[in-house]
Amino acid sequence: MKEIYLDNNATTKVDEAVFEEMRPYFCDLYGNPSSMHYFGGQVQRKVDEARNRVAALLGALPEEIIFTACGTESDNAAIRSALEVFPERRHIITTRVEHPAVLTLCRNLSKRGYRVTELGVDGEGRLDLNELRSAIDEDTVVVSVMWANNETGVIFPVEEISRIVKEKGKGALFHTDAVQAVGKIPINMATSSIDMLSISGHKLHAPKGTGVLYLRKGVPFRPFMVGGHQEHSRRAGTENTAGIIALGKACELAGHWMEDENTRVKALRDRLEAALLELIPRARINGGEAERLPNTLSIAFEFVEGEAILMLMSEKGICASSGSACTSGSLEPSHVLRAMGVPFTCAHGSIRFSLSRYTTDEEIDTIIRELPPIIRRLREMSPFGREFLNA
Amino acid sequence: MKEIYLDNNATTKVDEAVFEEMRPYFCDLYGNPSSMHYFGGQVQRKVDEARNRVAALLGALPEEIIFTACGTESDNAAIRSALEVFPERRHIITTRVEHPAVLTLCRNLSKRGYRVTELGVDGEGRLDLNELRSAIDEDTVVVSVMWANNETGVIFPVEEISRIVKEKGKGALFHTDAVQAVGKIPINMATSSIDMLSISGHKLHAPKGTGVLYLRKGVPFRPFMVGGHQEHSRRAGTENTAGIIALGKACELAGHWMEDENTRVKALRDRLEAALLELIPRARINGGEAERLPNTLSIAFEFVEGEAILMLMSEKGICASSGSACTSGSLEPSHVLRAMGVPFTCAHGSIRFSLSRYTTDEEIDTIIRELPPIIRRLREMSPFGREFLNA
Repeated sequence: MKEIYLDNNATTKVDEAVFEEMRPYFCDLYGNPSSMHYFGGQVQRKVDEARNRVAALLGALPEEIIFTACGTESDNAAIRSALEVFPERRHIITTRVEHPAVLTLCRNLSKRGYRVTELGVDGEGRLDLNELRSAIDEDTVVVSVMWANNETGVIFPVEEISRIVKEKGKGALFHTDAVQAVGKIPINMATSSIDMLSISGHKLHAPKGTGVLYLRKGVPFRPFMVGGHQEHSRRAGTENTAGIIALGKACELAGHWMEDENTRVKALRDRLEAALLELIPRARINGGEAERLPNTLSIAFEFVEGEAILMLMSEKGICASSGSACTSGSLEPSHVLRAMGVPFTCAHGSIRFSLSRYTTDEEIDTIIRELPPIIRRLREMSPFGREFLNA
Repeated sequence: MKEIYLDNNATTKVDEAVFEEMRPYFCDLYGNPSSMHYFGGQVQRKVDEARNRVAALLGALPEEIIFTACGTESDNAAIRSALEVFPERRHIITTRVEHPAVLTLCRNLSKRGYRVTELGVDGEGRLDLNELRSAIDEDTVVVSVMWANNETGVIFPVEEISRIVKEKGKGALFHTDAVQAVGKIPINMATSSIDMLSISGHKLHAPKGTGVLYLRKGVPFRPFMVGGHQEHSRRAGTENTAGIIALGKACELAGHWMEDENTRVKALRDRLEAALLELIPRARINGGEAERLPNTLSIAFEFVEGEAILMLMSEKGICASSGSACTSGSLEPSHVLRAMGVPFTCAHGSIRFSLSRYTTDEEIDTIIRELPPIIRRLREMSPFGREFLNA
């Protein structure tokens, strides 16, 4: 059975062209780019090329690209750096719907003398920018707001948020976790005021274990990982050359696929969404009224458990997700849906479908055929569901 | 021209069997091990297998293995964790010959209110354990001493050091950067008292971008990278599944190759060493009187520049290193050789050959043939060298 993989916000297939690009750098061109000999030097040139490719996708300068091990490292590095740059300031602003890489870090910091404001969202997952405006004060050191939410796909107006931070923040830095946005929607740092931005390679068809921290030229920085002089002394540790080269290629490809993502993939998502809403009663789109990523559909089915839906879909070869990808496997209800005020009965029955360039019409047909009977069957087993079905 | 790669302390070739082991996990079995669906679950089982393999090489328990992105991350995580575990203590002990991942971090900390003792070494690169004994006090939070030096291969008596720390340290933790030791010499954590130990994958024929922090069961720990619940909440960030699987296989292979490393490879190193000493006047082994790794030869040639030797060897396809691998490319003289009191004229003319399982008799023959005339030619060009040659 070939799986139908609609869990691309959790992780993606490495593109075959990305794999081919990095392949020689394991067993053949394995030199350390820091080495003097020609064998290291030829790898250094490919790392430079990769840096240019990442910069091109972002509209950034090559020197603004710092390669890291993952989005989590980029997030940790950005926020920790800001705290070291302004050691006298003690206020951090973030949102209640951030990825744990930001939110857990901020909550830890709140136990160590930092004041943390977590901005809330409305029922559609949207921020109130006035809440941000009144939260910023002269003690604010960093504002960290994600570009797009991993669970709902809701897009935050980060450019506007950045302008507010610049205007009201007395030099506070603005960081955005753009892990879900990069490669799915156009980004241009050349016309932006965002100071720092996190990328995760494995969300855009590069391998796991790769990431980038974009750091605007001129923005002060203190390294998170300390040691050798790699990445212009901004991130120590021998360069993950194959991973970096892969990420460069993946960024180049993401540029090519951007239109497909926003036309064909979006149309597939919209068709899936419309069909499920039509065929399954008491279904609701989480964040449906907000601006969203073209590939993401978070849909709540009342009276059923998301984990049970996942299990039955998995038997049909359909891979999707409930709750946030990184914490699923646990049965905690999603912090994102709770922050949106989604009722418990719906939050528990929420499923995220996240599509990709590989998603086909036939796969969407299969889900539209298989999912409604699964929901009906589960509702028949649930006391509340039976009540509803018999009403 | 096929290169003769004798720079294995800088980085190694990924073993073909390691590559084959990880290969399916890029484009085919790319699921996120944290995901609920079967597609993630099958990857989780391979990650567990890898953890068992790493544990087996170390004589450790699987739950004592934390996968990281590199040796530098492991070093940073170990030391930072100790500081958080004992926030009231302010004294750190390390050595003057550590890798920058430890030394630079400690020097940064010394600017932030920590007292750092850097133990010195003698002319052969050996520690004086009495210096350690008298440095430890009740304010000591962590002692970090490398297992084997990357430049000279000199092995420190870390088991004895650990016992001293346990005996005199009032609960201080002992960490060892074992990046150069693991896979080259036998290690058995089951009979050891070492609390934390760092591994780098790319030093033992796994890919770059992989590492391990060994954390003894029961030793308190605070995570360095904060976010999701991966690695039992000890290291956040989506698991680098292909990298982890590769590192597991590389550890399994390292166990198989251990005897070859300590017999055949050691004999090749010894033959190279003896021949160069015989054929080249005014050559000296750095750390030659100390216990050393079987694969490492650091040799000083008076009156010549290491960078020039590297360049001329590189023309013959021979890849080696001068100074520490991670900082070469710069022209700073090595901090390790300076700490040993190696005179400037020798430190500048030091070359490190680091062999591996792939090193052949023929390659050693080539170096023995090519290097003496290179040294002679360079000495003829140097005023001091000419003086010596004409004496």
